[in-house]
Amino acid sequence: MKKIILVICDGLGDRPSANLNGKTPLQAARKPNIDRLASASMLGLIYTISPGVTPGSDTSHLSLLGYDPKRYYTGRGPLEAIGAGLKLREGDIAFRCNFATVDHDGIVIDRRAGRIKEPDTGKLASIISEMRIDGHTVFFKESTEHRCVLVVRGEGLGANVTDTDPGVEGKGILKASGRDAASQRTAEIVNTFTDMAMKKLAEADLNRERERKGLKPANAILARGAGEYPKIEPFFEKRGMRMGGIVAEGLIVGICRVLGAEVSVPAGFTAGMDMDVSGVAKEAERMLSSVDFLLIHIKPTDVAGHDGNAKGKMEVLERIDDMIGRIAEIEGTVLALTGDHSTPVSAREHTCDPVPLLIHSRGLRSDGISSFDEISCSRGSLSGLRGLDITPLLMGYADRNEKYGA
Amino acid sequence: MKKIILVICDGLGDRPSANLNGKTPLQAARKPNIDRLASASMLGLIYTISPGVTPGSDTSHLSLLGYDPKRYYTGRGPLEAIGAGLKLREGDIAFRCNFATVDHDGIVIDRRAGRIKEPDTGKLASIISEMRIDGHTVFFKESTEHRCVLVVRGEGLGANVTDTDPGVEGKGILKASGRDAASQRTAEIVNTFTDMAMKKLAEADLNRERERKGLKPANAILARGAGEYPKIEPFFEKRGMRMGGIVAEGLIVGICRVLGAEVSVPAGFTAGMDMDVSGVAKEAERMLSSVDFLLIHIKPTDVAGHDGNAKGKMEVLERIDDMIGRIAEIEGTVLALTGDHSTPVSAREHTCDPVPLLIHSRGLRSDGISSFDEISCSRGSLSGLRGLDITPLLMGYADRNEKYGA
Repeated sequence: MKKIILVICDGLGDRPSANLNGKTPLQAARKPNIDRLASASMLGLIYTISPGVTPGSDTSHLSLLGYDPKRYYTGRGPLEAIGAGLKLREGDIAFRCNFATVDHDGIVIDRRAGRIKEPDTGKLASIISEMRIDGHTVFFKESTEHRCVLVVRGEGLGANVTDTDPGVEGKGILKASGRDAASQRTAEIVNTFTDMAMKKLAEADLNRERERKGLKPANAILARGAGEYPKIEPFFEKRGMRMGGIVAEGLIVGICRVLGAEVSVPAGFTAGMDMDVSGVAKEAERMLSSVDFLLIHIKPTDVAGHDGNAKGKMEVLERIDDMIGRIAEIEGTVLALTGDHSTPVSAREHTCDPVPLLIHSRGLRSDGISSFDEISCSRGSLSGLRGLDITPLLMGYADRNEKYGA
Repeated sequence: MKKIILVICDGLGDRPSANLNGKTPLQAARKPNIDRLASASMLGLIYTISPGVTPGSDTSHLSLLGYDPKRYYTGRGPLEAIGAGLKLREGDIAFRCNFATVDHDGIVIDRRAGRIKEPDTGKLASIISEMRIDGHTVFFKESTEHRCVLVVRGEGLGANVTDTDPGVEGKGILKASGRDAASQRTAEIVNTFTDMAMKKLAEADLNRERERKGLKPANAILARGAGEYPKIEPFFEKRGMRMGGIVAEGLIVGICRVLGAEVSVPAGFTAGMDMDVSGVAKEAERMLSSVDFLLIHIKPTDVAGHDGNAKGKMEVLERIDDMIGRIAEIEGTVLALTGDHSTPVSAREHTCDPVPLLIHSRGLRSDGISSFDEISCSRGSLSGLRGLDITPLLMGYADRNEKYGA
């Protein structure tokens, strides 16, 4: 029985890039360790949801981890809330929020409150962290950067609730409304919370201090993406493997927490372009003494894709090459390297293009292909698989499945 | 957001052909435009229904257009009837028919009435175009060549009805029978119609005139392929795209009409070996000003396959090469080229062999394969996809899907 390491580079897949002589960032990157590994691996181009579907990072991670998003995905709010450290219960309604700045007429003039971040967000969140409204409890917590989360708990709530976030600046905060009676109850609580939060944030000393420094006050909360926390089996119960994650980004941390995984963030390992991976391989080895399945999530490939930064995406891939080489040396493992979706630099958005996958373990077959990229992998033996196939496949190669039949 | 052009060559796929030095017609054909396009495209070998299923043209077209034939296909009758220009309602029972010739003893001596065609078929059809039988209405109309269609409308009808067409010459017309009470009601109406039609056709001046000219009279109607008209969402409602078709063959015209597509037939664009495609690219460009999804159906590849005519099939492919080159130049489109099934010249029948698929659009990946044929495409990134994947995939590449998740 082997342990499993699944490295997911967010937005990994790409298209030919004019800035890279018609190559994709993966084709253009100097990545000797990854390519050496590729030549001793099974490769393929896979659809993380299904052909023609443009995946979000949440739905595609659920799928790659063996949880059908059609059944388990109920919006980003609950995952963000758990990622931020709140403990949710089945039936809780959660929203993704922003700290924002409104003017005296209530017009949103900055949807990110001057890109406010820790420690200011934590201090302001503590003022409105728990409220009772109409017999329900509302929890509020800061998340990464200007982001925050809101959870409504109680009986008879629904999640079909519209956003209070107008989505653009220059408009007022919207009134939430519900598409059914239970959701209308949630909407009214959110509207009351929004008013109460504005009043309390307006009085906060920290906001006056920010104004004195020429910074925008975070005097309003914008909510969006309502979702009901689903009933979801922890990874260990479903798969019999203790799960761990080396993950910096809130959304994917949220998914790990939902699944009951232990999460670790080595020093310098961020979700941004400044990500330092020098401590990852060692931390992976440490965690594998207590977990059976380790997810390593690399975010800045996606950041560079959204920014249209071909060279930057290539450079991130070059930066993880050494890390992959070290991880591949950990004994007794099945190692997989893939993406959750494509974020081509030419599109600056998620697209439906399939992503490369590599599976390596000592003694397994290799496809005889010596480069890990979108074109080479298309000829590999794993091509055409779908996200939901991957966790069972890795378990099979790790001798962690049971024979079906005799 | 791009527009989509889907070119389907009927019966495109083939097997090695002794007449072509062991090559398939696609391999043997001189097709510089298609091969140049292939080298800048994603390719694959796809199952238009599923592995091991030998598709009909109707089921495979439904599948490629994103309609699961298991749910929507109810026999060829309804599609032929709509292709012939009848307007059907949910619950109508439709049959494919032939004009045939019977002798004085009622024995079928020619199942195609001397390959009768327009204008004779239209004149004879007008004699029996509408009848009331047992409180139900029966509609009859000519279709292409010796073909015609029959529709029974009313309450309490069923479609589990056997054919009146004996399928071979030298036998009498069969009595239709139903496998349940509602279908038995339909069968009796069809039997009555068959008798009444024989009586009226026997008296037709046109048939006497044909006999004087030494032509066989069309003095009987043979019905087969009963099917109930299904509830089917128009393409625009299902996909949010206005659909158009450049289609000459009745069956595929019927599918276009069922889906609410606008159909155009440029001058000389036939469903036979004499097909002239010189006007197709220009007509495609014209239609794309008002439609979002354009189906172009090329029939004679299938005709040549059924005739066992390897050189003819190769020649048809060479004839469409220039057309494909021109269509590929239309800006702002995703172009797909595929077949609905294989009709190998060595088999003279549809077979289960998968068919080549090419998807091209500026900026997308290409597989680096420089020939569009059954063997080269098997190495492409699209291999293993199924018919039902294709419309969603084309929508994804045309930026016409919505991101699933965040």
